[in-house]
Amino acid sequence: MGEDLEKFFVNVKPARILVELNNQFSENYPSKISGEVDATYSHTVRIIHRLEGYGLVESHKDGRKKLLELTDDGTEVARKCSELLTELEKKEED
Amino acid sequence: MGEDLEKFFVNVKPARILVELNNQFSENYPSKISGEVDATYSHTVRIIHRLEGYGLVESHKDGRKKLLELTDDGTEVARKCSELLTELEKKEED
Repeated sequence: MGEDLEKFFVNVKPARILVELNNQFSENYPSKISGEVDATYSHTVRIIHRLEGYGLVESHKDGRKKLLELTDDGTEVARKCSELLTELEKKEED
Repeated sequence: MGEDLEKFFVNVKPARILVELNNQFSENYPSKISGEVDATYSHTVRIIHRLEGYGLVESHKDGRKKLLELTDDGTEVARKCSELLTELEKKEED
């Protein structure tokens, strides 16, 4: 029931992308994140655009790469998403 | 952008119903909760059935009323939902 339980409460891809950006200490760019959250590249890019619009993510050009970083607001929301997802995953294992 | 931001991350009605059940110290029953979260009665009842199925809510008959209570698991998930919603509402006020 786990995946199902998560989906009942959370929009899983946006939440996971934010959490992933918070967990990774190395460079983040859209194609890497899309692999990590198992979303298509174009879906990931669309979500990242919205996260930028909300002021939760910032991007910087590094040559041809687009490097992504959480803002302070993004970091706070990422933490709360992470805690909720962890709680729901615990239930899944019961 | 607040409501919109919440919806981007959270399935708002299920999360709010759980939070509402956690906040209320008086008796909870479906029609009361539906008023508090601004959902139709039938939508609220459907969500509550799923919450019962996930083991997050228990119900007891009290005459013609159906009294609702969070389980321990439900209380934990409700707290995490509440913290995330509060964080997202803060952004909305910025």
